[in-house]
Amino acid sequence: MTETKPAFIAIDWGSTNRRAYLLDEDGRVLHTERDGKGLLSVPCNGFAVEVAAIRDRLGDLPVILAGMVGSARGWVNVPYVPTPAGVDDLAINLHWVEAGRTAIVRGLADLAGDVMRGEEVQFLGAIAAGLAPADSLLCQPGTHCKWARMKEGRIAAFSTAMTGELFGLLRDHSLLADFLKGDVRDGEAFRAGVAAGLGGSLTTELFRIRAAALLGNRAVEDSAAYASGVLIGHDVGGVGLEPGENVHVLADAHLGALYAAAIAVAGADAINIDSHDAFVAGIHRIWEVSAA
Amino acid sequence: MTETKPAFIAIDWGSTNRRAYLLDEDGRVLHTERDGKGLLSVPCNGFAVEVAAIRDRLGDLPVILAGMVGSARGWVNVPYVPTPAGVDDLAINLHWVEAGRTAIVRGLADLAGDVMRGEEVQFLGAIAAGLAPADSLLCQPGTHCKWARMKEGRIAAFSTAMTGELFGLLRDHSLLADFLKGDVRDGEAFRAGVAAGLGGSLTTELFRIRAAALLGNRAVEDSAAYASGVLIGHDVGGVGLEPGENVHVLADAHLGALYAAAIAVAGADAINIDSHDAFVAGIHRIWEVSAA
Repeated sequence: MTETKPAFIAIDWGSTNRRAYLLDEDGRVLHTERDGKGLLSVPCNGFAVEVAAIRDRLGDLPVILAGMVGSARGWVNVPYVPTPAGVDDLAINLHWVEAGRTAIVRGLADLAGDVMRGEEVQFLGAIAAGLAPADSLLCQPGTHCKWARMKEGRIAAFSTAMTGELFGLLRDHSLLADFLKGDVRDGEAFRAGVAAGLGGSLTTELFRIRAAALLGNRAVEDSAAYASGVLIGHDVGGVGLEPGENVHVLADAHLGALYAAAIAVAGADAINIDSHDAFVAGIHRIWEVSAA
Repeated sequence: MTETKPAFIAIDWGSTNRRAYLLDEDGRVLHTERDGKGLLSVPCNGFAVEVAAIRDRLGDLPVILAGMVGSARGWVNVPYVPTPAGVDDLAINLHWVEAGRTAIVRGLADLAGDVMRGEEVQFLGAIAAGLAPADSLLCQPGTHCKWARMKEGRIAAFSTAMTGELFGLLRDHSLLADFLKGDVRDGEAFRAGVAAGLGGSLTTELFRIRAAALLGNRAVEDSAAYASGVLIGHDVGGVGLEPGENVHVLADAHLGALYAAAIAVAGADAINIDSHDAFVAGIHRIWEVSAA
């Protein structure tokens, strides 16, 4: 392998975390750094200073940013690009904070009334990297779980479910809180929750967690896994999966395993792919096309 | 009207509120008092003292209690009676704290894994008072909305939806909180939310509230009404109403109007009935049967 020259810096800048990549012309990662300097910890006028500090560390190179950094609470509130959208649309519509030097990738808006900022790079990158077919269903679980229908390599439509956030609200603030202290992992309780969440009314199934604890129908230590199953089952059920359909899931190992189990209960097949590889491939393609 | 003699005291004792009724042999209300001494404000060993104080005020009479006072956090954790259950089952199974003098009405457990404490008196009372037919669908909205299928005057089955609690969690603690400060009332936004909640995935429809605000698709002051509509629509949709079916709703004027609107959007008909009248009729019937 020949020594390669740094070409640009890509930053995936979310609300609570930030990840910077030093990439060469071919999209190879030369260096990575990750920290907790999400945009909520940066003052509104502090973004230029932050980017200058990253250039000091990684090199005086062009910088492309993606994620919530392009929102009202970020550096610049950049308008959304409507779906369907591909790499070309994002490359043409880069928002240049400083011409030729610092750009922000726009987020996407779906006609059905949905938005994303940051996940679009990973979804398009998954296709660019050959991690998923050009026509496929992608899922990125998390606080706000994103589902994207890809058509000919572009994001045709997407939707978001508040799955992770709702679980946090229930665990931290609800009358179920006392029952939700246990571990969440794949298993009998989780899958039973998925089955209930796939078909039933979410608000009714959630109350039954309390009822089961009061009636002694379920070990309290299983209730958190069951509740997570109900929520993820409701999430997966809302997508309308075809039997045997492949779902490509971009997640860490823990959430990836839970979604894979839930997708299996729903009769489809999950394929876990690496979200960091997808991001790097996506931002590199946007960079290439914008420079062409 | 002849002057009547007090026969017993009925107390509807919930978590945050308490309502005491002085009743005569025929179930007429001679006096009512209401205060905020819900069981959460009473120490575990304080219930006997509280009941003695009520007797001092209303008379040295038999007392029948219903509601969360019969739960683990209440006076005595009284076992549930299984559905189907009628007045006879509750009368036979009164839990006597002091024989012939002080009794607690047991709550109900549904086979599908649900529980209630207190609403059973109102549901059975609605039938006893002729406020709803012996075969009917009853709904008591609130923090935990209860739905009961009545058959031949008995509670055949019931379910609970965490509707009100979820709305509170979203308004007070979620990333939607900033958008949910507006008033909730029936209107275009509320009914649009109901339509979305009746059919769609709850977690997806909730995220779209945020997206609509970011995209400028809905006035922020309408978002709370829309969100309430989504949640109540999801609740109503989970019941599986028949077209044109009557639903008897026991609620205050505000929640009664919202549920009536949501039930109308779902193609059924709401009939609002008075929950206090229902409670009085129910507890009087239980008293009559237990004394027979």
